[in-house]
Amino acid sequence: MNCIVGQSGGPTVAINSSLSGVISNNKYNTVYGMINGIEGLLKKNIINLSNIFDDNKLEQLKNSPAMYLGSCRFKLPSYKENSDIYNQIFDIFKEFNISAFFYIGGNDSMDTVLKLSEFAKQIDYDINIIGIPKTIDNDLMATDHTPGFGSAAKYIATSMAEIYYDSIIYNLKSVTIVEIMGRNAGWLTAASALATNQYNTVPDLIYLPEVAFNMDKFFSDIDQCLKFKNNIIIAVSEGIKDSNGIYIASNPSNLDSFGHSILSGVGKVLETAVKQKFNCKVRSIELNILQRCAMHIASKTDIDEAFIIGKEAVNTAIDGNTAKMMIFLRDSNNPYSIKISNVDIKSTANLEKTIPLEWINEQKNNITKEFIDYVKPLIQGQINLNYIDGIPDYINIGRTL
Amino acid sequence: MNCIVGQSGGPTVAINSSLSGVISNNKYNTVYGMINGIEGLLKKNIINLSNIFDDNKLEQLKNSPAMYLGSCRFKLPSYKENSDIYNQIFDIFKEFNISAFFYIGGNDSMDTVLKLSEFAKQIDYDINIIGIPKTIDNDLMATDHTPGFGSAAKYIATSMAEIYYDSIIYNLKSVTIVEIMGRNAGWLTAASALATNQYNTVPDLIYLPEVAFNMDKFFSDIDQCLKFKNNIIIAVSEGIKDSNGIYIASNPSNLDSFGHSILSGVGKVLETAVKQKFNCKVRSIELNILQRCAMHIASKTDIDEAFIIGKEAVNTAIDGNTAKMMIFLRDSNNPYSIKISNVDIKSTANLEKTIPLEWINEQKNNITKEFIDYVKPLIQGQINLNYIDGIPDYINIGRTL
Repeated sequence: MNCIVGQSGGPTVAINSSLSGVISNNKYNTVYGMINGIEGLLKKNIINLSNIFDDNKLEQLKNSPAMYLGSCRFKLPSYKENSDIYNQIFDIFKEFNISAFFYIGGNDSMDTVLKLSEFAKQIDYDINIIGIPKTIDNDLMATDHTPGFGSAAKYIATSMAEIYYDSIIYNLKSVTIVEIMGRNAGWLTAASALATNQYNTVPDLIYLPEVAFNMDKFFSDIDQCLKFKNNIIIAVSEGIKDSNGIYIASNPSNLDSFGHSILSGVGKVLETAVKQKFNCKVRSIELNILQRCAMHIASKTDIDEAFIIGKEAVNTAIDGNTAKMMIFLRDSNNPYSIKISNVDIKSTANLEKTIPLEWINEQKNNITKEFIDYVKPLIQGQINLNYIDGIPDYINIGRTL
Repeated sequence: MNCIVGQSGGPTVAINSSLSGVISNNKYNTVYGMINGIEGLLKKNIINLSNIFDDNKLEQLKNSPAMYLGSCRFKLPSYKENSDIYNQIFDIFKEFNISAFFYIGGNDSMDTVLKLSEFAKQIDYDINIIGIPKTIDNDLMATDHTPGFGSAAKYIATSMAEIYYDSIIYNLKSVTIVEIMGRNAGWLTAASALATNQYNTVPDLIYLPEVAFNMDKFFSDIDQCLKFKNNIIIAVSEGIKDSNGIYIASNPSNLDSFGHSILSGVGKVLETAVKQKFNCKVRSIELNILQRCAMHIASKTDIDEAFIIGKEAVNTAIDGNTAKMMIFLRDSNNPYSIKISNVDIKSTANLEKTIPLEWINEQKNNITKEFIDYVKPLIQGQINLNYIDGIPDYINIGRTL
């Protein structure tokens, strides 16, 4: 019997490590890969992964960013509305003698796992369908955390520490605003607090989508900070909203000096507002997609866990499970200890996990020690990359995507 | 006799390494540091560096980003117009028994070195005034390259490689535009070509300030590329200008759909233009100040060279030289071999080195092998950082800046 594996949604630096884990756990005759997820599967864009990877290549795959198999953003219809597409998929499963299906992804991908599982049950098709979580956003329910989050958190915290050093060089007052990914969940933005050490508090202020944003409160927070420090650093989620649920980035009351609505990101919006309010240097920085692809500063803990959860997904299928998502359960923060388990896919698909409000401080402008204790173990350790000519030697994706 | 050292201009990850080199070359009774460059010197904001650093701390300083002594942007007036400020400075030199002055900086800082040297000669004050180059921009004349450039180039090329992996995941046509620092010189943007390896050409197109930018030619370049590849990556200098010398970022003919002038960076301007012209996914990414502060991916070659040039600056002063800037001379590309020398400060201050036009291809949208041969040795090697709790352990700047 054979299995098939796919990747879906946005990239993380850990998603290829989970793929490497699936391939390495040699329990099926052939491990097939679908190119561009379900979208490619429907076109029979399928490759045989079993004969591509030796141990060295699996190690290189584990340490390569983005998605070896390519991705898609494809939402399956309900099979009650359109069963054709499901019949097509299961015909392909039959043709390739597929008895297990692994899908590495975030919320939308888990919806695919749920729907395929339900259809399989409906037509009584014997297949083990397992979701393997990944997302830098850490917003999947049921699991302690998601592969990909720890590395993104490490990139963000390291970058924040470096931005801090850059921000203090001139003898003047300054406000530096760093915009971090996260539309509805503030996990990544909050992780910037890991830049704080025994000497420096970085960032000074943190604004999360979990809390309604108020511009006057924001100004008063900055005012307070500038009384004690020359150079203030602020971390802000791209998805902060006002009390009416309107994104600050799209707030029509943020106008430039010509009265034109400012269409850029929230960092630029706040930069403009702070410049108008305070007589000091203001800079905004958008931490860009390197948050999800900067393999060179990945967390070893994250990459290792992503590998193991991929490997365990195969064991979970072999044990006869289906309609499951793999999860981490945490035994303790210090010493850090987790175990791998799985949950019914229904308990996680299409739900979103945000930061518990009790992990946000009373002033709603920073996080508590409980959050730090939770996130710190996830960024530990550095990976050993092979460099060729000064640049990391990532795996070749030897086909036209 | 004592010496004094300062840092000035924008940060690089190599500037503290040069400071470490100066301090470690124990030839003066006391090494003083001026806080915030000349600006701090005028306020006698001076610290004794000789008793702060043991060998471990010097190593940590070498591997810490930004500027331990702080910086300033302060242009000395001509001493013929205002000699008061010069008398003030030289009174402080007398008070602290200063016989050598080291200034680590870029173009503006070399102007300070020039002016102070001229005034010293004028008043017959016996002091050795030496400039130590640093700038990520690599735009100083007389030296083969500048400390700080190699590390920024390594950060940019590594990030470009990672952005490439991120850009190819979906089965659709896309254009990714990466905006890189450089107002007048394209060294950093051109260095993105180091992301190319035996498998992938990254980026596909490169636009430099050395060449007048033409939007129609740009569109036709993209059109050509999209015929052969789905996912195009473009590197562009923030400072590209049209044939009239007007910055593309400020071109008033770049209007949004409401006819409003777009005021953001060149990446956003081009993103909007390409979106309107091509029916495909377009994204722009601004590589932000991490270009100059991402110590975690610094070039070992760069950091080591910055240390040695700092150390050699002290020897150059001790040998009785003044009004000099330290330089690298290259003996060969492969094997890479340089020697350290110095030039008359007049031959470099207030001049700007741009990319030789013969290192730009005929189509003016990429660079030649000569450029790669020149820049590749500068990004070689990785530094060994100490990590605490998953974050690099940079030196504490134990004072309120």
